Amino acid sequence: MAAQLTKEELLAKAKKPAADAMELHPFYRGKVETMLKCCVRDFNDFAIWYTPGVAAPCKAIQADPELVYQHTNKGNVVAVISDGTRVLGLGDIGPKAGLPVMEGKALLYKYLGGVDGVAIMIDTKDPDKIIETVKLLQPGLGGVNLEDLSQPKCFRILDTLRATCEIPIWHDDQQGTATVTLAGLINALKVVGKKMNEVKIAFIGCGAANVAISRLVFAAGATPALCCFVDTKGILHKGRTDIEQRKAEFVDKWKLCNISNAEGRTGGIAEAMKDADVCIALSQPGPDTIKKEWITAMAKDAIVFACANPIPEIWPWEAKEAGAVVVATGRSDFPNQVNNSLGFPGIFRGTLDVRAKTITDEMCIAAANEMATMAEEKGLAPDFIMPTMDDVDVFPREAAAVAMKAIEQGIAKITDVTFEQEYAHAKKLIMRARGMVHDAMAMGYIAVPEGSVAPKPSKMVMAAVAKVTAKKPQAKPAKKAAPRAKRAGKKRAR
Amino acid sequence: MAAQLTKEELLAKAKKPAADAMELHPFYRGKVETMLKCCVRDFNDFAIWYTPGVAAPCKAIQADPELVYQHTNKGNVVAVISDGTRVLGLGDIGPKAGLPVMEGKALLYKYLGGVDGVAIMIDTKDPDKIIETVKLLQPGLGGVNLEDLSQPKCFRILDTLRATCEIPIWHDDQQGTATVTLAGLINALKVVGKKMNEVKIAFIGCGAANVAISRLVFAAGATPALCCFVDTKGILHKGRTDIEQRKAEFVDKWKLCNISNAEGRTGGIAEAMKDADVCIALSQPGPDTIKKEWITAMAKDAIVFACANPIPEIWPWEAKEAGAVVVATGRSDFPNQVNNSLGFPGIFRGTLDVRAKTITDEMCIAAANEMATMAEEKGLAPDFIMPTMDDVDVFPREAAAVAMKAIEQGIAKITDVTFEQEYAHAKKLIMRARGMVHDAMAMGYIAVPEGSVAPKPSKMVMAAVAKVTAKKPQAKPAKKAAPRAKRAGKKRAR
Repeated sequence: MAAQLTKEELLAKAKKPAADAMELHPFYRGKVETMLKCCVRDFNDFAIWYTPGVAAPCKAIQADPELVYQHTNKGNVVAVISDGTRVLGLGDIGPKAGLPVMEGKALLYKYLGGVDGVAIMIDTKDPDKIIETVKLLQPGLGGVNLEDLSQPKCFRILDTLRATCEIPIWHDDQQGTATVTLAGLINALKVVGKKMNEVKIAFIGCGAANVAISRLVFAAGATPALCCFVDTKGILHKGRTDIEQRKAEFVDKWKLCNISNAEGRTGGIAEAMKDADVCIALSQPGPDTIKKEWITAMAKDAIVFACANPIPEIWPWEAKEAGAVVVATGRSDFPNQVNNSLGFPGIFRGTLDVRAKTITDEMCIAAANEMATMAEEKGLAPDFIMPTMDDVDVFPREAAAVAMKAIEQGIAKITDVTFEQEYAHAKKLIMRARGMVHDAMAMGYIAVPEGSVAPKPSKMVMAAVAKVTAKKPQAKPAKKAAPRAKRAGKKRAR
Repeated sequence: MAAQLTKEELLAKAKKPAADAMELHPFYRGKVETMLKCCVRDFNDFAIWYTPGVAAPCKAIQADPELVYQHTNKGNVVAVISDGTRVLGLGDIGPKAGLPVMEGKALLYKYLGGVDGVAIMIDTKDPDKIIETVKLLQPGLGGVNLEDLSQPKCFRILDTLRATCEIPIWHDDQQGTATVTLAGLINALKVVGKKMNEVKIAFIGCGAANVAISRLVFAAGATPALCCFVDTKGILHKGRTDIEQRKAEFVDKWKLCNISNAEGRTGGIAEAMKDADVCIALSQPGPDTIKKEWITAMAKDAIVFACANPIPEIWPWEAKEAGAVVVATGRSDFPNQVNNSLGFPGIFRGTLDVRAKTITDEMCIAAANEMATMAEEKGLAPDFIMPTMDDVDVFPREAAAVAMKAIEQGIAKITDVTFEQEYAHAKKLIMRARGMVHDAMAMGYIAVPEGSVAPKPSKMVMAAVAKVTAKKPQAKPAKKAAPRAKRAGKKRAR
């Protein structure tokens, strides 16, 4: 807990990862690389993996395109695609400057979900060209994760691609954030004993995230008419002609003007939050975007999601002092972090494993419910509504929940799998990915930074070595065995 | 040597890799995957690799785009891009069916060159869209390997991209084949004691490969006027109106009509080969495309490259019986294999390492000379004019030769490196790539097929394990050490 830290201290603390990043990014020169997935026993194997042998799988796929999933890695590849126009809180920094983020996301896909993330930066801001490029890249991909696209174009890009692509398309800033926020909201409501369909929610900020969150929250049972949305010009309502005039561009926002705010409230954040049970803020970095007295004016047992980065709209301790019971933020140094990384790796794992053709809102809700259940199993509390990223079970359980929902909805190509089977499969892939990184560090293929100690080799390594060394005493001490024994040093003496 | 095998036996032999490929492609479901390149000591490292820390390198690149090479893996990524319109000898099988080949090429890039190959299939045959897509993908790539594009569009695609891209663009079916063939030709001429500028060369076949080979061979000193080209309609000459009428499309071929064949020969393969010192055939699969008597009619000490796949234009033993002294093919089961895999991994390694903005013909010639020198060092013979792929030094030596030429030509961004330094750097990266695959197999992260035995762990693994196990006796036998000792089994007894 960081409740005692001042803004300055918190900002200083936030500088440490940045300093480390500036040192370690050049140390590694990249966060992901290509690795072989198949054996190379000797150079004759190249006649299998390349010409002439490879022609046989090519012909098989030509005859039946679905076989591409059997003969290639397509089914496990998710391209993390961005034009770099809205990277983190940095704005339009361009495709080269956005690459470290997309490589980071590729890393998270692999480490948390066992999914082969591939970073692809597109050198255009034109939404039509982005749409066309993504469509052209489909044959080699299992799915696409759109990332850090500016709005409003991100809505049209996602909607168009979801409607026209044959592989699942995901915009993490919309669907991912929505899924994880919904998980937190489900549990926060349990903590205060309120019902989804009865609560008044004030959505502060009306960008890609909150538009997507509201869609998912409404799909999960919340009542639009009871909710209010606030953008930079105030509360959304039917009379917002500024939005109406651009309704072709802001389709979702104009829809929200019409289905929300049945009371016809006007004004700003203060007016939207009055009597609200829940405040979901993804707006301007704080800490003074939301004032204490506005929280005091909320309904009893208020729930506050203050998710602006790097500084929440209001400090959690101030929100609590003002009467909020459950407070969530986007930061890892406060309780209840709403963390996108809890979502996409498991969701795409399950989607790929049953070869779902898209990722529906229902699949997102299934993931959110599974996440919520995991936290509930450990015991909910005002300061514990979300599982954490270091709980490895989050990802395979989400994967299984998502996969089952896809099968139920009839959009999965692979249907003969149970929750338990998908859980086991996903967990195996994820543990393999982590194990490979662990052992690459242990053996020195991935160097550890100065001052850090390499981890100890895993059980798999110890077992492989034991197999070699154990054989030596009894087996014939052939010439070929000698140099190996020598290498192993002391072990030869046994 | 396979000189005694019949056509049927050779074809049967060629079926073994195909059968293995159909079994092992589905076993692995892909040949390359994403691997982490950086450490994950614990989950706090994600604050360095992703938000919030990653923002610092992003901002640094925004301020100076060249820093993308410091902070990301861009400088080591080569996209293997194809539309699947001319895959191997299979023709237009489409982008999905072409994926096994591009994954295979990505594998070869990594294993032989330490380069992170990424397979990208484009779902269009339109050359302008292919050009645009490749250009849009540049920000995240260190270079592009175009592959298996149909002709004549492949010429314009390559030429346009080389002229307009800021990263090196390579079409392996043109430049790669040309480089390796030139290496073989240099040594074949040494074997028979003839000079490059004096020999008559008959180029049989006038596709992407032979057009590119001739350009490089002429750049390396051969005399165009002494050479003849044969396409499906006969020998090229100034009177070939069929080509003249399409000269906008067949720019290079029309040029060849004008600079080659000073004698004004007409006719077919037989007429082109008469008196020729060298025959370079990349045309129709044989074995009867070239007849024995045509070889007998060549000049004394004839050199024959019969490189059609899977069956050479003439069997090597028949060519020798007819009087050829040096015979090369594209097959690994005959001597003198002209093998593209000898070229691109080392060439791109050197290109990337000095950040050359393109790959010039001079760089290709430097690579060819280095390859030729390597074979010469081992002792040239009619049946030994090429190094082989299992000689690991081929690739770092080529890399160093290519890098030095790029620096000399003033097209390298990194110039403070010597041949020896680049050789050492390239070798280290290549051995690391191979070591990772070896140890992934040893430890079981890459399963070995049934009937094969996993390799023994490498020295790096043995050293890492020895470090852990050696410490135990003298160091404090702390609680944490116990379970690890248990895992290692017998070692605890020592």
